[in-house]
Order: sequence, then structure tokens, then C-alpha cells
Amino acid sequence: MAQENWFTEKHAASGSSIGYRVAEKLADTQTPFQHIEVWRTTDWGNLMVIDGCTMLTTRDNFLYHEMMTHPALYTHAAPRDVAIIGGGDCGTLREVLRHPEITSVVQVDIDEQVTRLAEKFFPELCESNADPRARLLFDDGIKFMADAQPASLDVVIVDSTDPVGPAEGLFNAKFYASCFRALREGGILVQQSESPLVLLDLIQSIHKAMHEVGFAATRTLPFPQPCYPTGWWSTTLARKGGDLATFREADAAARPFATRYYNAGVHRAALAQPEFLRTALPA
Amino acid sequence: MAQENWFTEKHAASGSSIGYRVAEKLADTQTPFQHIEVWRTTDWGNLMVIDGCTMLTTRDNFLYHEMMTHPALYTHAAPRDVAIIGGGDCGTLREVLRHPEITSVVQVDIDEQVTRLAEKFFPELCESNADPRARLLFDDGIKFMADAQPASLDVVIVDSTDPVGPAEGLFNAKFYASCFRALREGGILVQQSESPLVLLDLIQSIHKAMHEVGFAATRTLPFPQPCYPTGWWSTTLARKGGDLATFREADAAARPFATRYYNAGVHRAALAQPEFLRTALPA
Repeated sequence: MAQENWFTEKHAASGSSIGYRVAEKLADTQTPFQHIEVWRTTDWGNLMVIDGCTMLTTRDNFLYHEMMTHPALYTHAAPRDVAIIGGGDCGTLREVLRHPEITSVVQVDIDEQVTRLAEKFFPELCESNADPRARLLFDDGIKFMADAQPASLDVVIVDSTDPVGPAEGLFNAKFYASCFRALREGGILVQQSESPLVLLDLIQSIHKAMHEVGFAATRTLPFPQPCYPTGWWSTTLARKGGDLATFREADAAARPFATRYYNAGVHRAALAQPEFLRTALPA
Repeated sequence: MAQENWFTEKHAASGSSIGYRVAEKLADTQTPFQHIEVWRTTDWGNLMVIDGCTMLTTRDNFLYHEMMTHPALYTHAAPRDVAIIGGGDCGTLREVLRHPEITSVVQVDIDEQVTRLAEKFFPELCESNADPRARLLFDDGIKFMADAQPASLDVVIVDSTDPVGPAEGLFNAKFYASCFRALREGGILVQQSESPLVLLDLIQSIHKAMHEVGFAATRTLPFPQPCYPTGWWSTTLARKGGDLATFREADAAARPFATRYYNAGVHRAALAQPEFLRTALPA
């Protein structure tokens, strides 16, 4: 057998690791913000790594991108204007733009190189970047939300890296207060919220901060995500008025686009709370 | 920083790996059937490895054991007699015995050393081994099911290793025919069925074989399982008469024992089929 090469992310906080057999390094660049690598794997397509942490693979990113997008958009009664904070690989942007009722999406990622590398190595995620409804900014998302017009957005999706480094300021009450102010009544904030098994403390603190700044309802939706630590991930939603327990089920069932994970049944299922989450989080 | 030691399982079939930071090797034994290691990890309690494959950790085995047990037992109208094929760590046995209506459980694992090591390093999983309703056999599960009295069991749980080596004969129509014969009308067969993302072919072949031998309904329930390849796992249920889409929801909600993952909402959620599974499997 020829010698194999593996890229392995050792996740210090959980004492566990996830790795991929790799065939070739496709890119390795130090930007003003972070160190980005792209690998060609043997079984997972391409793999993007930022500061040693796996960001996405071609094979399994559909789980994350669908779950960061469709539950919020099918919960909102009539979403039109969306902001994505982070999300430089453009996969979330693509999923948002699948909804024909959306009229504008602004994506604000601090690091243009993430998008340039995604265009090259994950072109399928970038296929909607030229959509006239989309605007790509390379700027500070915290400042963008602080400066956003009050009541100008229906959904804000925080598609960020882990709460360390550049993304640390995206996981606190000050940032959530900016989001709350920028959302219209009934608007929804979506936050990627890490592994329910390992970072339950963080998820609890996210709920607490969201309630503090005025969000009426919060809800954590777990989903599988093989490339992230523990393979189990979550998104936490917060709503400015209105609930998160019901959604436009008929619209979700009749959605005019293809998905690989999401459907109305999966949305209902993601609202179910595993017993340890149910006892740890507000109803 | 002191040098760290990691145990890593490289899963050739999926080109991905999962590892744990380990502090100490607690056991290393070659049995007539397989090579068993037990490690003490830094964050996941103890870790059992068989032939290089992670079997369980103290921290996350509750997901697997609860999902291998409670969905089937709350789907059956009145389960009394259960057989577990494999399951030598006794975690599934413990979950089955939590149901007061169960009158007998026989566990048939070919390798007594799995149970002896579990008693030592996973004592919490073995706390019901002395229950008068339980019988532990160390024998060939395929032969046991072939010789079982017709219509003598309500639930058969196949809690096996991967479909290679000693467990290979547990994933085919011949074995399922033995299970079908041994089950009473309305009885349920539960098969651990690997990663939905990576082994969809295997899951399809399991459904096909189950239908071939006479099972009326089949259903795959996905669940998170961080220690297994891709961190996403599944159990496939087959029923001899009756359906698998409904269950005793009120009983599940009022269950007289504690769980950490399973509850009535989680059971309903596990019945939802991710879009790619829905299109790949019979309804």
C-alpha cells in the first residue's frame, strides 16, 4: 500500500479529532486574518481548513448550509431581506437565494480570500454569487450590524467560525443587540452554535444573551455535520416577536428547489429536543 | 505542553478518521475472536476498541444504546421477550431492562471477554446484569437465532460490530429469516445499520433483505453517534405485521426511567427521513 496522507483536526476542547485522507494540497495562504488551506481528499471532495479547523468539505456541507437557511426562512412568514455575517464560502448565500420571495441578501465576510478560494475550489457553492439580489461585502460583520438601519432585515444568519479569533465578537449580547435592532418585527436571527454534546455551556449562554437583548423565543436545532467536532452540530434561532415552534409546513413541503437533507419532516424533527437539551434550555 | 497521545481509528471505507486524546491503556487482549483494547481518554471516559474500531466511549454511548432500544420497545404494543445478538458491553441490555413490562432478555455475544472488560471498565452499563430477567450467553448469535423457538420473541436487537469479520453473517437474508421465524406477530427486528451518509448502499440492501424474508414494514432511524465514522449513525427496524410509523407516544412520554437522548419527541423526530434517505429507501 502506498503511504497515505491525512489531514487531522485535533479539537483540544473536546479531546477528540476528525481527519480526512488527502491526496493533494491545493492551496495554502496566509491572509491578513487567518491561515487558509484547501486539500483534495480521497473521499470527501475538497476540504477547506482555516487556522487548522475544518470549515467544510464538498461531500457534507449540504447538511450545514441547508440547516442554517431553510428552517429560518420557512419559519418567517414572508422573508425578503437577509444578511449573512461570515459565510464567505457562499454556500449559505446559495441556499437563501433558492427562495424566490427573497429580494436582497448581503453577505459580509471579513476575509475576501475565503470567497476567492471557494470560487475556485467549491464552485458549486458560488453559483449564485452573480444573482442580482446578492451583494458581497468584505468587511467587519460586527460593524456592519452595528451600523445597519433599524428594522431593515427579516433574517440575519451568523455563519461564522468558532467563538475564538475574529468570530469571538459574534457570540455575545452586544452583537445580538445590533441584530435585534436591525431586524423587523417577526425577524429571525440564526447563529451556528457548535456541538450540543460538548458545548452545551456555550449554547446556554447564547440563549441567555439572546433573551437579554429582547428576543422573545429561542430554539436550538441539532443536525448531523460529520466534518465538525463530534459530528453533531446545531443552529440556534432567536425571533423578534412570534414563535419558533411552528413554520410554513405546506410551503416547506412544496419548496420549488431541490434539497438533500432538509424537508418539512426534517424541520419538525429538528425542533424536537433531545432529553439533555430539553432540561438544559428554556422551552 | 507535555506530549499528547491519541488513539485514532482510520476508517478506510470513508477516508475519514475519528480520534481521542488518551491518557493510559487499561487493557489489551487478544481473544479467540478479536483484539480488544480499552483506553482511558482525557475527555470521553473509557474507550473500547475492537480490531482497531471504536466500539464505545463512556461519554457518548447513551445515544446508541437508547436508540437501539427504546424506539422498538415503544413501538411494540406489549413487548415481553427480547433477544440481543451481540451487545456484549451490556449497555443495550440495561436499557431493555428499564422497561418493567419485559419479562425475559437473553443476550448472545460470541466473545465473553467483551462483557468481562465492560464489567471492569464500563460498570454502569453492566449494573443490570444480575437482573433475574436477564440471561447472558456467550455463543454464536447466528446459530442461536437459527435454533430459536418459532414465535418465541417480541423484539430481536442486533447490536453487532461492522458487517465484516464475526458480524458479517448478521447482515443478510438468511439471518433475518431466522429472526422473522423467531418473532411473534407484531414483533420487531432492530439492526444497527451504520452511517447513512457513507453506507447508504448497505442500508438499502438491509431493507431489501428484510422485505425478502417477509417483514411487512422497514424503517431507518438516524441518530448522532460521535464515536462512529462520520458521527452519524442509524438503526433499521423491521416489523412482522404492523407498522413502524406510529408508537406508544403517551407511554414514551411517561416512561418510568431516565434517559439522556430519547423522549417521545426524539422518537417522532427519528422517524423523519432526510431528503436523500427518503428518495433512496422504500416508504
